[in-house]
Amino acid sequence: MVADDVPEPVPGPGEVLVAVKSCGICGSDLHTLRHARGVLEMAEAVGADMPFDPDSDFVMGHELTAEVLELGPDTDGTTIAPGDLITSVPALFPASGPVMLGFSNEYPGAYSERMLLTAGLCSKVPDGLDHRRAALTEPVSVGRHAINRVGHGDGDAALVYGCGPIGLAVIADLQRRGVEVIVAADYSPLRRSIAEAMGATAVVDPLDEPAIEAWRRVDGQRPLVIYEAVGVPGMLQQVIAAAPPRSRVCVVGVCMEEDLVHPMLAVVKELDLCFVLGADPVEFAESLGAIASGAIDVTPMITGVVGIDGVAAAFDALGRPDDHVKILVEPGGPVTPMPPTPPTPLTSLSS
Amino acid sequence: MVADDVPEPVPGPGEVLVAVKSCGICGSDLHTLRHARGVLEMAEAVGADMPFDPDSDFVMGHELTAEVLELGPDTDGTTIAPGDLITSVPALFPASGPVMLGFSNEYPGAYSERMLLTAGLCSKVPDGLDHRRAALTEPVSVGRHAINRVGHGDGDAALVYGCGPIGLAVIADLQRRGVEVIVAADYSPLRRSIAEAMGATAVVDPLDEPAIEAWRRVDGQRPLVIYEAVGVPGMLQQVIAAAPPRSRVCVVGVCMEEDLVHPMLAVVKELDLCFVLGADPVEFAESLGAIASGAIDVTPMITGVVGIDGVAAAFDALGRPDDHVKILVEPGGPVTPMPPTPPTPLTSLSS
Repeated sequence: MVADDVPEPVPGPGEVLVAVKSCGICGSDLHTLRHARGVLEMAEAVGADMPFDPDSDFVMGHELTAEVLELGPDTDGTTIAPGDLITSVPALFPASGPVMLGFSNEYPGAYSERMLLTAGLCSKVPDGLDHRRAALTEPVSVGRHAINRVGHGDGDAALVYGCGPIGLAVIADLQRRGVEVIVAADYSPLRRSIAEAMGATAVVDPLDEPAIEAWRRVDGQRPLVIYEAVGVPGMLQQVIAAAPPRSRVCVVGVCMEEDLVHPMLAVVKELDLCFVLGADPVEFAESLGAIASGAIDVTPMITGVVGIDGVAAAFDALGRPDDHVKILVEPGGPVTPMPPTPPTPLTSLSS
Repeated sequence: MVADDVPEPVPGPGEVLVAVKSCGICGSDLHTLRHARGVLEMAEAVGADMPFDPDSDFVMGHELTAEVLELGPDTDGTTIAPGDLITSVPALFPASGPVMLGFSNEYPGAYSERMLLTAGLCSKVPDGLDHRRAALTEPVSVGRHAINRVGHGDGDAALVYGCGPIGLAVIADLQRRGVEVIVAADYSPLRRSIAEAMGATAVVDPLDEPAIEAWRRVDGQRPLVIYEAVGVPGMLQQVIAAAPPRSRVCVVGVCMEEDLVHPMLAVVKELDLCFVLGADPVEFAESLGAIASGAIDVTPMITGVVGIDGVAAAFDALGRPDDHVKILVEPGGPVTPMPPTPPTPLTSLSS
C-alpha cells in the first residue's frame, strides 16, 4: 500500500469531479488488501464481468462524502452543483459498464483527494449534517438492508453476533425501528460500549456467558432473529448450534473461507438462513435521511480520523478490535488528530 | 436387525390397538440402522427429552396404515371404530410424554403385526383408498410441508435435486399446485422415470448436464426455488454454487454428517436457505385427502412389498437407488410378491 500521485481525473459524460472530504475504511477493504483475487472470484461466481485486475494499481475507498468541484458533459438536470456536499452509492455507471467503487483500475476510489462519480447516483447531504457522519451512510444502509431482507418483525427480538461497523449498523437501525430486545455480543469492551450507545438493550461478552443464554436471560420469549455479523470460519456453525428452533439467521458477516456446518442441526430446528449483501439505492437514501434527522446517531462508531499518509497504520489498527471501529480517511488534510478511544465525544470529531 | 416376538401390546388410556396393513420403509430408518445415536443427539440439540435407548431393542416404522382392532379406555368421542382402516401422524402422546413413532423402546413401530397408536392422532382412510397408497401419506406430507415452509409462489419454477421418496413427494405436490416448471435431477433412470410420472416437467441426469443448466434450458426466467432432497455431504455446497442470485433453497434432504460450505458464495448471491423437517397434522390430513382424491397419485413410487421376513433384504435393496424407491412392509402377510422394476403398474400392487 503506497500513497502516490495519479493523473488528475477528468469528468466524462454524466460524471462529476469531486474532492473527497471523508471516506470510511470498510472491513471489505481489509479483506481486499489480502484477498483481492477473492473479490474477482466472487464476481465471477454471480456471472458479473468485472474489468478489475487486482495485481495492477487501484485506489480503494467507497464510504465517502465529497464536495462537488465540476460537472462533466451531459449532466443537465442533475440536482447537484459545484460546492455541494454529496455522498454516493458505492458504484459508477460509465458507458463502458458498471464499476464497483474502489475496485477499479480506471476509476480511483475515495482514498484520494479528487475522484469521479456518476452524477445521477450522488445524493446531496442534507443541510446541518457534517461530512463525517454522512460518510457512514453506506455501512448504515447495509444494516438497514439486512433487516429488510430477513423481514425482522415488530415483535421479534434480535441477537447480534459481532459489533463491528455492520453489527453496529444493524443495532442502530433496529433501535430506530423500536425493536424492544436487542442483545449484542462482542469480545471487545470498546465495541460493547459502542453497541450500547447505539441502541443495544443488553450486551454480552461471550467469554462470560454464551450470547444465546444472555438473550434467554433478558427475553427468551419473542421470535428471534440472529444477525451473524462476524464472518469468520466457525461462526455460522456456532450460530446454527445456538439458534432456538424455528428462528431466523441473517448472515451479514462475510466469511471469505470455506466453513464447516452441521446441516442436520439446521434441519431439526427448521432454521432459515438469509444471506445478505450491500443495500439498494432506496435503502441508501433512507439511511442518509435517518442519519441527518438524528434517528440514527453514528457518532459513537467513528473512533479515528487519518490523512492519506495514515491509511496504512489505520488498516493495522483496525485489525485490533479493541482499538477502533470506524476510521475515516480525510485526503484533503489537515485532519483533526486521531481522537482517543474509547468512544469519542461528538464535539471532538465534528468538522 | 431381527424378526422376533414381543409382548402383545395392550391399549392404555386414549390408545388404540391396531393391526398394521402397510408400512413404508423411510430413508430415516436406513440412517437409524447405522446412526441411531445421531437421532438422540439431534433430539438433545433441540432440547427434546427423548426417552429412547438405541442400544436396546426397538421396532422401527412410522409410515403406516392399519386396521383398528380395539379401543382402549378413555377413547370416547373418537371418530374411529374397530374395523376401520386408519393412518396416523408419526407420533404418540401417552401421559408419560410424546413418543416419536419408531423411536421408542416402549411403543413398537409399524414393522410389527400389532401396535398401539394415540386414538386422537389417527385419521380414517377415506373409502376407496387402499392401504398401500394411504401408507404414503406421511412422506407426501413432508413434501407438502417443505413447499409450504419455503413459500413456493405460483409463478416460481422448481429444481429438485434427488428423486428419492421425499424429492418425489415435493414433485407430486408441486404438480398438484399447478407449478409450470418442475425440473428433477437424479442419477438413477428408475427415479427419473418415476419423477416424470409424478409430475416433473423435465428430468435430467447430472452426468449428462448440470441440473441448473437443464433448468436454464427449459426456463431460466422464473424466480427459482431449489429443493435439496439428497442429503449427502457436498450437496449443500453444490446447490449454493449452482443457485442463481436471489434464489431460494429448501433443504429437505437430511445430511447427518458435517459438511463444507463457502458462505461467501451465498452472501454474494443473497441466497435464502430454508431447512425443513416433517409436517404438521393439517398438512398430514391434506396429504391424505390429496391421495384419496387422486390429486396426487403415489402409485409410481411404490416399487416393492415385503413381509416382516423381507425387511432386512429391503433395507439392502434401498441402498441401491436404481432398484427401488419405496418398499412397503406388510407384517400381516401373505404379501403380493415384490413386483418387478421399473415402475410397477397400479394393478399389480393394489390390494
